[in-house]
Amino acid sequence: MTSTLSSLVNHQVRLASRPVGLPNADNWQFSSEPVAEPGAGGVLVKTLALSLDPAMRGWMNEGKSYIPPVGIGEVMRAGGVGVVIASQHPDFAVGDHVAGGAGVQEYFSVAGDQIQRSGLSRIDLRLGTLTQWLNVLGMPGMTAYFGLMDVGQPQPGDTVVVSGAAGAVGQTVGQLAKILGCRVVGIAGGPAKCEWVVRELGFDACIDYKAPPPPGAGRWDPVGVGLKQHCPKGVDVYFDNVGGDILDAVLARLARGARIVVCGAISQYNNTTAVQGPKNYLSLLVNRARMQGMVVFDYAGRYPQAVAELAVYLKDGRMKSREDVVEGGVAAFPEALNRLFSGRNFGKLVLQVAEA
Amino acid sequence: MTSTLSSLVNHQVRLASRPVGLPNADNWQFSSEPVAEPGAGGVLVKTLALSLDPAMRGWMNEGKSYIPPVGIGEVMRAGGVGVVIASQHPDFAVGDHVAGGAGVQEYFSVAGDQIQRSGLSRIDLRLGTLTQWLNVLGMPGMTAYFGLMDVGQPQPGDTVVVSGAAGAVGQTVGQLAKILGCRVVGIAGGPAKCEWVVRELGFDACIDYKAPPPPGAGRWDPVGVGLKQHCPKGVDVYFDNVGGDILDAVLARLARGARIVVCGAISQYNNTTAVQGPKNYLSLLVNRARMQGMVVFDYAGRYPQAVAELAVYLKDGRMKSREDVVEGGVAAFPEALNRLFSGRNFGKLVLQVAEA
Repeated sequence: MTSTLSSLVNHQVRLASRPVGLPNADNWQFSSEPVAEPGAGGVLVKTLALSLDPAMRGWMNEGKSYIPPVGIGEVMRAGGVGVVIASQHPDFAVGDHVAGGAGVQEYFSVAGDQIQRSGLSRIDLRLGTLTQWLNVLGMPGMTAYFGLMDVGQPQPGDTVVVSGAAGAVGQTVGQLAKILGCRVVGIAGGPAKCEWVVRELGFDACIDYKAPPPPGAGRWDPVGVGLKQHCPKGVDVYFDNVGGDILDAVLARLARGARIVVCGAISQYNNTTAVQGPKNYLSLLVNRARMQGMVVFDYAGRYPQAVAELAVYLKDGRMKSREDVVEGGVAAFPEALNRLFSGRNFGKLVLQVAEA
Repeated sequence: MTSTLSSLVNHQVRLASRPVGLPNADNWQFSSEPVAEPGAGGVLVKTLALSLDPAMRGWMNEGKSYIPPVGIGEVMRAGGVGVVIASQHPDFAVGDHVAGGAGVQEYFSVAGDQIQRSGLSRIDLRLGTLTQWLNVLGMPGMTAYFGLMDVGQPQPGDTVVVSGAAGAVGQTVGQLAKILGCRVVGIAGGPAKCEWVVRELGFDACIDYKAPPPPGAGRWDPVGVGLKQHCPKGVDVYFDNVGGDILDAVLARLARGARIVVCGAISQYNNTTAVQGPKNYLSLLVNRARMQGMVVFDYAGRYPQAVAELAVYLKDGRMKSREDVVEGGVAAFPEALNRLFSGRNFGKLVLQVAEA
């Protein structure tokens, strides 16, 4: 194995500078280095696919958050799936498929004393495909599961609204809520996504926030109109991935005792001015409602149980998934990431790094 | 009694029009009508004092809220305390002191079939003074008690911050939190209020949001600086009575798992533009925190238990109260109400209607 490894080159994408607004080419630098044999207890992984997530934009910023920022000059943080190509660890064998903190690079290694802390774990391709392990069975699925179950706490019959409905987290949130017996309304951009969410995923309705005004329309508010139409009893649970105007529109339609899960705010991540605060937040008071943030890492101890449950739904067909796989390897990362911010991805955005 | 009653005139203040921004003289009209004998099962009360509350501003607006708006031409809604001067109801005798939905007028009657629904109740002046029954033992006290206990859920050792700290709700929130073993930091306007909150009520600190900049100061942010100084471990519970910039400053200092009680937003009630949404709301995500609204009426069934507990604290000296009593009767109502919005009241604002 040693002779093979020494000939491998690891191509990487590093953070060159902190973006102002939407990331551009100047914020990234490409590097390469030889692949090294793992040390005692360590594992070396060839990355097959990377997860591209809205949260990455936050990791590029300076300042306190739920996780330290990526340092300038460091390989960009990313979750990924791959195959073990060298191992000095008893729990990992060459050929095992794994998920872990890959970074935007072609190979990653985890030192022996970091295995536990890194969260490196074997994945079972009988439970889901490689890309599903980055989606329903990965971080987005865990985020959807614990955000909805623990924070949103939906009851059968509740009206659940989810934004970014065709995205990685949204698709699982909505399908889970349907399984729980809720009325589910998605919000997504464009007729193709909305149609898919309703026809394929079985949501009760989907509101196209990009819908053009009908001829002769005055002030045009497709989300407000859609919520009024599809949530006649108000919104009991809102799973928010987008923030901004859509959050305000939902706040205006809350049912009494509503729960808002603050999962993300992709509409605000590239702002060069202050985040848009929800001007309708006093609806929380009127409706005795709450708005609560969540970070998926807090639930790490319960991932296996959620994975097991979601894998059952995948197998029996109650849960579908869609991944939008971008080819081109790590070199394609900068452009691929930005698709998230214009809504050009359709489904969980994945960067293919090598053929499985 | 009949001959006496028929000679009485009831002076009233009615809502003439809906205000835009701060209420002014045009929004009110004065009226008077004879006082009528109560019908079967009814009670007639002479009002002694009225509660003046920030929430009144919301009741003057058109539109859906937690309670219907006051109609144009109707007597302005107000809670009050008074003495029964005629009764056809077995639970109320002439001379009893009572609290109830008085309205801004000198006399109010409750029909027999409305007694229960109206919330009219006898008050015991051995538990607290008349004005304390509009403060600690009245709606502000109930709001403080259930907002803090049920929504804020403070634990001993928590850092609890309350805005409007010298106001009706704030004074009780902070003292209750001290009794529970919390570190308590108030926010109030001006050195006199801040000094009273610390010296008399025993808060650990009070931040003067109106503090002038020291000589040579650049950008001056007394609340941000004060929170950093007085809440080194962050804010576990924030009881918000004011909204606006102060809410944003506290959001920026949340501890992990923090709870924000959305009780009011007096800084925003007279806006002629949209409410200022909290631009730092994503701190809820980073800190796994929640923001939750409350309306005191939901806890009506538990008022007696809260009154009993608070009365003990009043008697044993752990709870102090301050009422700012304005004289001049109902004619003084319009000007007195507006004191709330400029922070000119010091303590619970009460309008004296008649001598006790």
